[in-house]
Amino acid sequence: MNIDMIQAAAARLAGHARVTPLLSSPFLDDLAGRRVLVKAECLQHTGSFKYRGAFSALSALAPDVRARGVIAYSSGNHAQGVALAARQHGVAAVIVMPADAPRLKIDNTRAYGAEVVLYDRATEDRDALGARLAGERGLTLIKPFDEPQVIAGQGTTGLEIAAQAAELGVTTADVLVCCGGGGLTSGIALALADRAPGLRARPVEPVGFDDVARSLAAGTIQRNAALAGSICDAIVTPQPGDITFPIMARLCGPGLAVTDDQALHAMALAFSRLKIVLEPGGAVALAAALFAPDLGETVIAVASGGNVDPDIFAGALARFA
Amino acid sequence: MNIDMIQAAAARLAGHARVTPLLSSPFLDDLAGRRVLVKAECLQHTGSFKYRGAFSALSALAPDVRARGVIAYSSGNHAQGVALAARQHGVAAVIVMPADAPRLKIDNTRAYGAEVVLYDRATEDRDALGARLAGERGLTLIKPFDEPQVIAGQGTTGLEIAAQAAELGVTTADVLVCCGGGGLTSGIALALADRAPGLRARPVEPVGFDDVARSLAAGTIQRNAALAGSICDAIVTPQPGDITFPIMARLCGPGLAVTDDQALHAMALAFSRLKIVLEPGGAVALAAALFAPDLGETVIAVASGGNVDPDIFAGALARFA
Repeated sequence: MNIDMIQAAAARLAGHARVTPLLSSPFLDDLAGRRVLVKAECLQHTGSFKYRGAFSALSALAPDVRARGVIAYSSGNHAQGVALAARQHGVAAVIVMPADAPRLKIDNTRAYGAEVVLYDRATEDRDALGARLAGERGLTLIKPFDEPQVIAGQGTTGLEIAAQAAELGVTTADVLVCCGGGGLTSGIALALADRAPGLRARPVEPVGFDDVARSLAAGTIQRNAALAGSICDAIVTPQPGDITFPIMARLCGPGLAVTDDQALHAMALAFSRLKIVLEPGGAVALAAALFAPDLGETVIAVASGGNVDPDIFAGALARFA
Repeated sequence: MNIDMIQAAAARLAGHARVTPLLSSPFLDDLAGRRVLVKAECLQHTGSFKYRGAFSALSALAPDVRARGVIAYSSGNHAQGVALAARQHGVAAVIVMPADAPRLKIDNTRAYGAEVVLYDRATEDRDALGARLAGERGLTLIKPFDEPQVIAGQGTTGLEIAAQAAELGVTTADVLVCCGGGGLTSGIALALADRAPGLRARPVEPVGFDDVARSLAAGTIQRNAALAGSICDAIVTPQPGDITFPIMARLCGPGLAVTDDQALHAMALAFSRLKIVLEPGGAVALAAALFAPDLGETVIAVASGGNVDPDIFAGALARFA
């Protein structure tokens, strides 16, 4: 993994991925007691940064390999990213999803043109099912984060942050990143290390699911005790990746953790002050920017996704807006 | 009014106003049966396009005139635009608002640094009050739409639309614009006539408050029968302006009208598909893009503002998301 791969991904993504805006509000600055800049990646195609990594991975495949199609395991943002990127490349995408995934996510993934294969979490082995399908059809697995071309695609977010921060004269800042397996965090960290060494990537996770923060503190990969129980479902993963962790250990941290209520509060403030829609897992970085102590004068928060259920969103507004 | 004034406004606004993104979603295209591009002006500073016109007008004043301060009548988006633009110029802003304006709007306007002067709609004459204040302090009135430098500022939205459409290869389209007094519509029309003559500005208003559409059809200025009763309060005005109407009569139309429910439905779709927050009056152009018959293959809708009460937003989600 190096900056050349990220630059190459940026070249492939040009004209496809959106350059998302860096937003701000004097109200948020006042509330936080610092300057808060928000990279609105919820405005990316499919509503999250995952499209960047998916398109990067698809576009990096050899044409004859790509033509046989791709497969992914995901009930969420990665599924939609892979589905749209595959459609844009004119190849088949098979998305393996649990049968109890939200109807809307299944429908959306199908609407992007993917074939959705459902499995029973209780009785079926997802990996065995996927391996069989991949073998039968010659599909290539697109992993959600622990894959160099996916990391390179997510890293293009970091290239944009470096350029947008420079335009504003910002040369020193914590760059807070909503962190699951570490694909976005490690990609951004690699880009910043090359383009804006005064900007440091710091992962943000839900309290109780801070495997990356604990791994960075320990110097070795740590697992989460639980994998359910946070509303920030999009960024709850068992542990950091074998490829993403060494990058983060070299370039990132320390990690931060926020409560579910802080994430919901950040969603309400993003609604009222920035006019963007965030999902809980996409709001944890903004929550840390607003509510965490001991940050510097300028913080850049990556608002990584906006695929949220209307009821959860309305609930956040009712409590915090 | 000419393109040179809009270009000059763009030069003054550079580095201040945001270049807002042109968003899209395959789901909206499918629903509408046409390509729908959305100029997300809700992401502008203060949450609406009004900042452009306010900053343009402030920055065009002679320094000694500007230094005495400015005054505006508004309970909404224009107030916030003038307040922020004045603060950025380091001059005083007095905003005259009805005492029964929503608390949040009063608070926001004050938070941007303006002095808010409240009056009683029933017993006080707003214009007399404003004239007295302006006379005593030497304040310059910044009108909300019927003012060349305000129109020039709003027209910078049109310059961006022309450039963004060209990048996408779009040379022919209806450009639907949420329309109150016509400042945004006429400014965009002037910009498009010069930069993208295949793009035609068409005003969109609430059903029952379609003074601009009727004025364009009649060829003379028509008034609305009522001035209350639409949830699209931000764009309900008595009649088109004396400066904006001739521009619109020359370059725009025919007008379109949408129902309150269509505006709320468009807000819900902007939430789920674009991840942006729109207010009812800022959603009427998108509503027309999605639901109006007899539009061309490609439509550009200006999403003009996002300053919406959380309860109204949650209500739109409950009914339509």
